Amino acid sequence: MNAPGPAFPATPPDQVFDWLDTEAGKRSRVGLDHRPHHRRPGDDELDLAGEDYLGLARDKRVAGAAAAAALRWGAGASGSRLLGGSLELHAELEHELARFVGAQAAVVFPAGFTANLGAVTALSGAESAIVTDKHVQPSLVDGCRLSRADVAAVAHADAPAVGHALATRRKRRALVVTEAVFAVDGDAAPLSRLHEVCREHGAALLVDDGHGFGVLGDGGRGGVHDAGLSAQPDVVTTLSLSAALGAQGGAVLGPRRVVRHLVDVARGFGFDAALAPGSAAAALAALGVLKEEPHLAAKAVDAAQNLAHGLRDAGLTTSSPAGPIVSLPAPSAQAATAWADACAGHGVRVGCVRPPAVPDGVARLRLAARATLSESDVDRVVKVVAETAPRGARS
Amino acid sequence: MNAPGPAFPATPPDQVFDWLDTEAGKRSRVGLDHRPHHRRPGDDELDLAGEDYLGLARDKRVAGAAAAAALRWGAGASGSRLLGGSLELHAELEHELARFVGAQAAVVFPAGFTANLGAVTALSGAESAIVTDKHVQPSLVDGCRLSRADVAAVAHADAPAVGHALATRRKRRALVVTEAVFAVDGDAAPLSRLHEVCREHGAALLVDDGHGFGVLGDGGRGGVHDAGLSAQPDVVTTLSLSAALGAQGGAVLGPRRVVRHLVDVARGFGFDAALAPGSAAAALAALGVLKEEPHLAAKAVDAAQNLAHGLRDAGLTTSSPAGPIVSLPAPSAQAATAWADACAGHGVRVGCVRPPAVPDGVARLRLAARATLSESDVDRVVKVVAETAPRGARS
Ligand SMILES: Cc1ncc(COP(=O)(O)O)c(C=O)c1O
Ligand SMILES: Cc1ncc(COP(=O)(O)O)c(C=O)c1O
Repeated sequence: MNAPGPAFPATPPDQVFDWLDTEAGKRSRVGLDHRPHHRRPGDDELDLAGEDYLGLARDKRVAGAAAAAALRWGAGASGSRLLGGSLELHAELEHELARFVGAQAAVVFPAGFTANLGAVTALSGAESAIVTDKHVQPSLVDGCRLSRADVAAVAHADAPAVGHALATRRKRRALVVTEAVFAVDGDAAPLSRLHEVCREHGAALLVDDGHGFGVLGDGGRGGVHDAGLSAQPDVVTTLSLSAALGAQGGAVLGPRRVVRHLVDVARGFGFDAALAPGSAAAALAALGVLKEEPHLAAKAVDAAQNLAHGLRDAGLTTSSPAGPIVSLPAPSAQAATAWADACAGHGVRVGCVRPPAVPDGVARLRLAARATLSESDVDRVVKVVAETAPRGARS
Repeated sequence: MNAPGPAFPATPPDQVFDWLDTEAGKRSRVGLDHRPHHRRPGDDELDLAGEDYLGLARDKRVAGAAAAAALRWGAGASGSRLLGGSLELHAELEHELARFVGAQAAVVFPAGFTANLGAVTALSGAESAIVTDKHVQPSLVDGCRLSRADVAAVAHADAPAVGHALATRRKRRALVVTEAVFAVDGDAAPLSRLHEVCREHGAALLVDDGHGFGVLGDGGRGGVHDAGLSAQPDVVTTLSLSAALGAQGGAVLGPRRVVRHLVDVARGFGFDAALAPGSAAAALAALGVLKEEPHLAAKAVDAAQNLAHGLRDAGLTTSSPAGPIVSLPAPSAQAATAWADACAGHGVRVGCVRPPAVPDGVARLRLAARATLSESDVDRVVKVVAETAPRGARS
C-alpha cells in the first residue's frame, strides 16, 4: 500500500511544536503561565495552598502507616485492580470508608480524578441525561464529556435549575452531578434540595464530597452524610483521599450495585495501576485518627471562617466558606499571581487559581485552611494577605 | 422559578439503579463480570498478572525509599502540582527520567492514565488531527475522545495506514498516537517507520512507552530510545511509573516546550493531587537500581520469550512478545476466566483480559514476565498454563 502524497507541505521536525510557543506567549501575556514552586521538607512557610485540611499528611501515625505498608506490601501495587493489583489493604480501606459514612459499599481508585471519570461515565452513557452544576471540577466535566450522555450544565448551586433541566430532558435515565463543597470558592451545594428534585424526577444524584469529607458533618463524615444522604439508594459519593486524609487516591461510595458496576466497567479501576500500598495505608490510618479525634473536623472549617471574617474586616472581598476553603477575587490573572508571590515573600503560601481553572473567568487567591492553624497563624495570614492585596481586591 | 412537571414518571428511589442489575446480569451471562482477587503480603504464588517487570516493587532499596520519603515528606503531597503539591522530589524525578533517556525535559503526573489524557489533549485540540493505532490503551482512547480533534483510528501497527490517514487529514496540525509495546499482546509498534511517516507529513509522534521502558533498549531506556527517537524535537514519550519502576505515577518526556505546555494546560497536572512522595521516591530509587544493574532489563523480555516458546512447544497459540508480555487467546470470556482460575488453583496468577479491554473482542490470558523468574519458574508456568488450557486454545 502506498500512501498518497501529503495534504499539507511537510513541516520541518523542529517546527512541529512551534505552535506551543505561540500559545505559551499568549498565556504569558495574560498571566496564565505557571512556574510551580517546589517545596522542600524543611520549609517553614505557612501552607494554605495545599489541601491537607486536618494536617494529617505529615502526622506520624499516617506517614508511619504509609512507610510500614511500603515495606510490607511493596512500593507499588504492580498492576491494575483487575490485573494483579488488588490488595487486601484496598479491600480493608473500602470496608472502612463505607462503614464510616454508612454507605453499603465503596471502591478505591488510584485518584479522585479517575474515580470521578469512572463514576460519571459508568453511571450514565448514551441512554442517559446528565444535569451538572456548571462550576464542577474538571474531572467531573471530563467525565460528562466522555459519557456520551445528553449533558446540561446549569446555573451554580441552583436546585430549581436542575429540576427544570430534568423536567425537559429527553432521556429517561438521569444523573445529577455536583460537588458538596465547591473546590474553588468553598461554598456549599444545596444537597437536600438537589436530592428532592432528583426524587421528583427519578434521577440519581452524584456528589463529589472531596472538600466536605473529613471536615463537615458528624466527626467529619462529610457533606453527604450531613445531609442524611449517604445511605440512600439513589445517591453516590466520590472522594479524593488526597485532601483531609492526607494521602493519594480516590473512592466511590454508594449502593452495592453501583460499586459492583464500577468494578466491572470503570476504566480507572481496570486500566489504571491500583493505588500504591503506602497511600492506601495512609488513608486508612488517617480515617482511624479522624475516628479517634472527631473534633479535628470542625477545626478546619472554623479556621476558614475565621480567615474569612478577618479578611473581610480588613476590607477584602471573600467567598463564604461552608468548608475549609476561602477565596478572594483578584482584579486580573497577573494581579493574582503577583499577590500570591507577595504572600509567599512573607512566608505564607496561598493558592492562585486562574482561568480556565475558574468557572467565571475571575482569577482568585485560594486559601485552604487547616485544623492545625492557630489563632495567631490566622492573624498572620490575614495580615499578610491584606497588606499585599492589590487595589482592586478591596471592597 | 417553578420547575415544569416531570417529563418521565418519577422512578421510586430504590429502582433508580435497577438498570445496573440488568447490565450486571448481561455481563455475567457472557463471562464479563469481575471479582478481583485480593492479594496478601505472604502470598507465595507466582505472579504473572501484575506488571512489576523487574521485580522492583518489593526490592528493599525501592520499598525502603518509599518508606523513607513518606516519613520525610509526608504520606501525601497535599494538593495538585499547581496548588502547593509540587515537591523537590518531583523535580528530581523529572530531571533523572529526562536524563536517563536523553530527553530535554520530563513532567511527572499522579498516574500514567492522567499523563496520557493530558498529553493527548494538550498536544492536539479542535485545530488538530489525531491518527491513532486502533489498539491503544483506554487512557489514550479517552484522551483522543476528550481532545475535540479529528480522530482517525487506523489498522494496528501499520505505518502506511498512518501515512494514508495523515495524507488525507483536514487539519494541518497532526499528532500520531501509538504504544511502543502494546499492553495486551506485548507486540511492538514499528516506531522508526511511524516516525518517518510523521516526518513526511509534518506530524508529531506520541509514544506510550509504558511497557517498553525499563525492559527494552540499552539498559532499559525503552522502546523510544531504542528507536533513536527520545531526543527528537517532534517526539513525545509517556510512561507509567507503575510497571518496570514498581511504583505509581506517570510521566511525559520530550522537548522542553512540550513539558512547559503540559505544566500550563494538562488537567491531570493542575487539577489532580500530585504524586505521593513515597511513590515518587520509589520510582527514583528504581531508576537508580536500573542504572546500576542494566542487565535486569533484558531479563524480563528473555523470560517472556522463553514463556512464549515453551507455551508454543506445548501446542498453544501465543502472541509474539517484543517486550515482557505474552498473551494467549481463549475460546470465550468464560473459558478465559476458568483458565485463569485453574492456573491460580495451581499457584500461578495470570492476567485475564476480556472485552472491552481487548480490541478485537477475543478474551485472552495475559502473562507479564519478570526479570526475577527462574528457568524452573518458567517451566512451571508453562506446565500449569498448558495443562489447564481449554480445548479451543490449542493450535
Ligand atoms: C472537587 C475535586 N474532585 C476531584 C479532584 C481530583 O481528585 P484527586 O486529586 O484525588 O485526583 C479534585 C482535586 O484534586 C477536586 O478538587
Ligand atoms: C499502555 C498503558 N498506558 C497507560 C496505562 C495507565 O498507566 P497507570 O497505570 O500508571 O495509570 C496503562 C495501564 O496501567 C497501560 O498499559
